[in-house]
Amino acid sequence: MKRTPSNLDALFDPRTVAVLGASRDPSKIGHLVFRYMLDSEAKLFPVNPSAGEILGHRCYPSLGSIPEDVDMAVLALPASATPQAVRECVDKGVKAIVCLASGFGETGSEGKRLEEEIKKILASALPEMRPRFLGPNTLGVYVPRRRIETIFTSRERNPRPGPGGIAFISQSGATAVCIMEAAAAVGVDFSAFVGIGNKLDVDENELLDYFAADPETSTIIMYLESFKDGRAFLESCRRIVPKKPVIVLKAGRSESGAKAAALHTGSLAGSDRVVDGALMQARVFRAYDEEELVDLARALDHGRPFTGGRVAILTTAGGMGVIAADLLESRDRGVGLKLAPLSERGRAKLRSLLLPFASANNPVDVTANASNDHYAAALEVLESEPDLDAILCVMQFQSPFVDERLMDIVTDWFHRGEKSIVVTSIGGELSQRALKNLTESGVPAYPSIWRGVRAIGALHKRGVWASANSKR
Amino acid sequence: MKRTPSNLDALFDPRTVAVLGASRDPSKIGHLVFRYMLDSEAKLFPVNPSAGEILGHRCYPSLGSIPEDVDMAVLALPASATPQAVRECVDKGVKAIVCLASGFGETGSEGKRLEEEIKKILASALPEMRPRFLGPNTLGVYVPRRRIETIFTSRERNPRPGPGGIAFISQSGATAVCIMEAAAAVGVDFSAFVGIGNKLDVDENELLDYFAADPETSTIIMYLESFKDGRAFLESCRRIVPKKPVIVLKAGRSESGAKAAALHTGSLAGSDRVVDGALMQARVFRAYDEEELVDLARALDHGRPFTGGRVAILTTAGGMGVIAADLLESRDRGVGLKLAPLSERGRAKLRSLLLPFASANNPVDVTANASNDHYAAALEVLESEPDLDAILCVMQFQSPFVDERLMDIVTDWFHRGEKSIVVTSIGGELSQRALKNLTESGVPAYPSIWRGVRAIGALHKRGVWASANSKR
Repeated sequence: MKRTPSNLDALFDPRTVAVLGASRDPSKIGHLVFRYMLDSEAKLFPVNPSAGEILGHRCYPSLGSIPEDVDMAVLALPASATPQAVRECVDKGVKAIVCLASGFGETGSEGKRLEEEIKKILASALPEMRPRFLGPNTLGVYVPRRRIETIFTSRERNPRPGPGGIAFISQSGATAVCIMEAAAAVGVDFSAFVGIGNKLDVDENELLDYFAADPETSTIIMYLESFKDGRAFLESCRRIVPKKPVIVLKAGRSESGAKAAALHTGSLAGSDRVVDGALMQARVFRAYDEEELVDLARALDHGRPFTGGRVAILTTAGGMGVIAADLLESRDRGVGLKLAPLSERGRAKLRSLLLPFASANNPVDVTANASNDHYAAALEVLESEPDLDAILCVMQFQSPFVDERLMDIVTDWFHRGEKSIVVTSIGGELSQRALKNLTESGVPAYPSIWRGVRAIGALHKRGVWASANSKR
Repeated sequence: MKRTPSNLDALFDPRTVAVLGASRDPSKIGHLVFRYMLDSEAKLFPVNPSAGEILGHRCYPSLGSIPEDVDMAVLALPASATPQAVRECVDKGVKAIVCLASGFGETGSEGKRLEEEIKKILASALPEMRPRFLGPNTLGVYVPRRRIETIFTSRERNPRPGPGGIAFISQSGATAVCIMEAAAAVGVDFSAFVGIGNKLDVDENELLDYFAADPETSTIIMYLESFKDGRAFLESCRRIVPKKPVIVLKAGRSESGAKAAALHTGSLAGSDRVVDGALMQARVFRAYDEEELVDLARALDHGRPFTGGRVAILTTAGGMGVIAADLLESRDRGVGLKLAPLSERGRAKLRSLLLPFASANNPVDVTANASNDHYAAALEVLESEPDLDAILCVMQFQSPFVDERLMDIVTDWFHRGEKSIVVTSIGGELSQRALKNLTESGVPAYPSIWRGVRAIGALHKRGVWASANSKR
């Protein structure tokens, strides 16, 4: 018998945290975790029988000697010391345990034995008093808004994302922190990260339900190498996706990938074709690499889903418009949508507003000689087109008469307009800064045309799925 | 009758350059082009009937008043003034004309008429004295090594790449400079860029042959919206690709893309399926977006082609290894290669050298706790594996015990080892700096697993194609 999902609150919003294995040695995991967690508002208790104090905090010789209730116990201990520590957690009535050590089921029979022992110890507690157990073989949790964090990589070498709406459930901790660092570098933020590791107790299904109910989470992404209970997973997804998009990177698709997954987290991957079909039926987005996972997340987290599939391209560079048109329309190398013909009225207006050599057809090419005002005027015309759902804004700052104010123009329309907008900009520093600013303002913005088009495709899929749902 | 290709030297290595329409006004194209070209070693002549001097250079009232031979004339003039200027070039015996103006065939009948007029004027010259004409509707040329440059976008807003081995022939100038800026930002360099614009005279085929013979060019990439002579193009490619890889981004594949191309550069796209088959037969790589174009170029320009198709993955993050394995093996969402089983001897060696929880199978996962030395040791073992052709090095700097020296280790093996090596690193600033350094050292290095795997796939294709060639 499990507690209700809300007892996972002790993992993401603990009031009191004990760090077992807290250390004065700055190179130790038990030091980093304690130090990083000091930034949170949780009350912290370092536990170490041989240290007097750590970073000015009195050290407790044992969990039992802490004079208060402990919501979360972080085990920064070797695998072999874990069963004894779990026993102490049970005795203390700890609500949630995060077990950072590896060397369990993923490494062989001795590790599996340790996991069984821990399960027995947990089972020995009264169900309503039983601590929830995250891991082992995990980097634990990271909640940017509350600075709750057990990630033990160096913050300097491995910068973390800020608070946002994306919750990330990952079966691989190291992979997830790399992905989050790359995402943070382009302005994508997260509500929470949780590494499920070997899923001894807490698994992806329960976390999915938890984040479905979490008001700070608007989009859920997952890196999985196996499903603990595929049927339950799909049922949860079906309930959740009408409200929040779910995107899954399910690895172990290939023969070697599946073998590698078995060695990495001890998981057995199912048949990939079945997975593919099941995810599609449940209207879960499937990503095939780490970049697509985050690209789809930021499109779906902020972008506007649409159903009609009629797209316009607005570009300052003719060739970019042609490439984008191909990727939008092509079925095998693209997303299979349609460029919308513009209304006679719209085209006449564009002709009157734009430069002589501009194209008033779709793709609308304002040309490299256009100013911010030309771009803004064209965008306004497109926003009032009756038979148009989405606009891909190809924004090139290499043109002499446009500048960063173009971002404000597009951001403004993104928020007050009725069309779905996605931005791409190809270039160096200036483009990258602009894309980051746009992303931080919630606009899906990408450094490649294909990635922008793929985002448009995802917003269309989401719109079609939502409308099919509402007709059920 | 055309001159030999070598008369295109006047475009890429002129000794004397006249800028018609050179201007004192810093906002004018005729100012920028003149100013930028001053960095070259060519002797410059500004031509402008109403300016006394420009940037300290005496201005000539007409082309005819220049007292020396003129290799290249850059026309920074309106379209309507072009025929008269071309006539003067013919009279002067100029070797090459670069026509920067737009407003020709791409805009309608009046523009087409202008083009016909120019053709007639050129045809009136004796064949052996006939100037070559680049454009119109082009950004012209850029030769980083010699700082020959007619690109009239701001260098500050639109940084240019440095000297390298990639020649870029593009039917769209604006698009090409955006692509080159993005490439330069990650350390990819170019031997030359040339915008063919409306191809009134000089076309992609002749340029292809020119760069095939150019000792400073090792790889040729093209952005095309149409083929001037498809058969000749394929014949040239067949001759060239055994020596230098050719990569083509042929846009206008879709219905809307083809229409947009017609409006953009006045070109008529052929049937895309025919194009696809013909390029494949000629062993030309086809890219489908601007990122793939440069990604393939840098893999093929420096990387080692291989035939066996047996790949190993070396990773510091288990999950990254699983994702990479999937992308390497999958046929529909990947490149369809095989992860090689490692030899018993190799695996034993890996087990003895690596950390206890590391994986000595392929993917080799040294784990996030590995040091530079562990990674180096594993790489050495893989380099001496008998049945292995290529190694994907997944390099994550988030791990606490690795640092930037990892780059030197991999770069060293890249140059002295026998396997084909491609690097990926997912992350923020540190990863991006490392990737740029690797790229500048010639190592194909990418910020996403898929892009790294795609590079491996391209090197395998190139190897297989080369071996098929040698068997012919």
